[in-house]
Amino acid sequence: MDKMKLKLLYSDLKSDLDIIEKELAAAVNSSSHLLNEASLHLLLAGGKRIRPVFVLLSARFGTYSMETIKNVAVPVELIHMASLVHDDVIDDADTRRGRKTVKAQVNNRVAMHTGDFLFARAIEYITGLKNTYAHQVLSHTMVELCIGEIIQIEDKHELDQTVRDYLRRIKRKTAILISASCELGAIASGADAKTVKHLKRFGYYIGMSFQIIDDILDIVSTDEQLGKPSGSDLLQGNITLPVLYVKDYPTIAPLLKEMLEGNISEEHKNKLLIEIRNSDGIKKAKQISNLYLQKALNEVKQLPPNSAKKSLQNIALFMSKRKF
Amino acid sequence: MDKMKLKLLYSDLKSDLDIIEKELAAAVNSSSHLLNEASLHLLLAGGKRIRPVFVLLSARFGTYSMETIKNVAVPVELIHMASLVHDDVIDDADTRRGRKTVKAQVNNRVAMHTGDFLFARAIEYITGLKNTYAHQVLSHTMVELCIGEIIQIEDKHELDQTVRDYLRRIKRKTAILISASCELGAIASGADAKTVKHLKRFGYYIGMSFQIIDDILDIVSTDEQLGKPSGSDLLQGNITLPVLYVKDYPTIAPLLKEMLEGNISEEHKNKLLIEIRNSDGIKKAKQISNLYLQKALNEVKQLPPNSAKKSLQNIALFMSKRKF
Repeated sequence: MDKMKLKLLYSDLKSDLDIIEKELAAAVNSSSHLLNEASLHLLLAGGKRIRPVFVLLSARFGTYSMETIKNVAVPVELIHMASLVHDDVIDDADTRRGRKTVKAQVNNRVAMHTGDFLFARAIEYITGLKNTYAHQVLSHTMVELCIGEIIQIEDKHELDQTVRDYLRRIKRKTAILISASCELGAIASGADAKTVKHLKRFGYYIGMSFQIIDDILDIVSTDEQLGKPSGSDLLQGNITLPVLYVKDYPTIAPLLKEMLEGNISEEHKNKLLIEIRNSDGIKKAKQISNLYLQKALNEVKQLPPNSAKKSLQNIALFMSKRKF
Repeated sequence: MDKMKLKLLYSDLKSDLDIIEKELAAAVNSSSHLLNEASLHLLLAGGKRIRPVFVLLSARFGTYSMETIKNVAVPVELIHMASLVHDDVIDDADTRRGRKTVKAQVNNRVAMHTGDFLFARAIEYITGLKNTYAHQVLSHTMVELCIGEIIQIEDKHELDQTVRDYLRRIKRKTAILISASCELGAIASGADAKTVKHLKRFGYYIGMSFQIIDDILDIVSTDEQLGKPSGSDLLQGNITLPVLYVKDYPTIAPLLKEMLEGNISEEHKNKLLIEIRNSDGIKKAKQISNLYLQKALNEVKQLPPNSAKKSLQNIALFMSKRKF
């Protein structure tokens, strides 16, 4: 995603995001040199801080106080970071966003415990907010994330799965943490129950839309745009939405089988990607993403009047319409 | 440790421990087949449930209600289980207590996410108790555990370390979770602040004593008694207390160097173990363990009169005097 464009979209959040950035740096600090090195590396690798952005915007619908809101904005990003590190350990991925991963930089053991540490810090951090319900939302989100990781492993290389399986998977993988970010921002600022509900749903829908686009881009973008090989989901055996729609097409099915069995030639791999790119699977997946986007925008509409509404709309549109 | 003997020691807790056991089984249940398999395997592998026992006994000093207490008894065991799974991933250990580890049974990826899941469930479970301070105690414990894991990696193969480094390490590795178990049991039952403090300290001291004994037994026990090769800590590069005391002895230093450099012969390895076994390092380590035991017993003495006092004393003595 174009980080610069996104930053312009939420430029009025800049000073608050700087506070979050400092809090994140403080939160990952510990008495272990190795741990600090690994965590700092992760922090510097950056990322869009989309989850804290959703927390901050959602908090505008209640009493906006950074002292309170940071208690939820920091942990959602820490959990996101933790899941990235653990994904790296798992997938043997060597680069993420063009940088070397923690794993490559130090080693697998440290990466795993760094992820654990970030999870634990997230939970410790949110206890700064004296609100058991918020703790429940965050811990439940973590549970679902973890179950999602395992189900993703179960579903790998599995062609006998439905669109519903896919949607349930990306809900856990992506949507639930974005949904929790919106919900927690609203809860922390004391927004009313109806507003909390709309923001929670908004986060869920936009998370779904976002992940579908992400999965489309993995197929249609160039290696350079992605910072990793195009089609790498498929290479790892993850069947995403555009593929699910076309998996039985006669030009695709045999190549797909070869791919999932792990003995595909470079030539056939490229042919498979081109076939999927030119199929209607991409269009169909975009339609579903768009449907979720509309649902997200519909939730925003029902929110009380507030300057943050426009920002939520803009970010939603940006996330769902991005080209890479 | 002799599980049967220990069970006799806390036979009056049997029915409450059965409740905890059922709650543990329910807590690890999820919609993922793979995850259930891995978790159930872990549950069946058993363990002494020492941490829940400390929770239950500590809760006797307040208003004892299982409905409340289970909210802390279950998570401390889940965290212990999670750290065991992650240790397995890390250490490439293939057996634990004579059973195949989750890792060997399924694979590394699943084991890592199973550990994450158990951590998350622990945190989710404790939110059943509407007490932010208890949440803080548990999350802080998790943070320290994770830092401890990394520091253990940092200190591996490192002969230039002090007894203080060792003690700080086992505090994080073992003592802090036992201490938290006692503290949380007392907090959950609404015991008074002074009682909470004594129980927290008791747990810390007994945890330290227990881990030192564990480290001694790793050297002096037979492979059969341990269910793993004698001296495996040392083989993995972990320098424990008995070794720290004698690492510079002329009969030990050169062999130890060989061992840590990873190119020791079977003959030299056995010679090294025998040298350490026959040295005063064992005696000195036992003295330190004993010191912690005395401190633990001293805390028990200061607790208000209660039938659980005797049980705490008995378990403390048992844990610190065990022969394997």
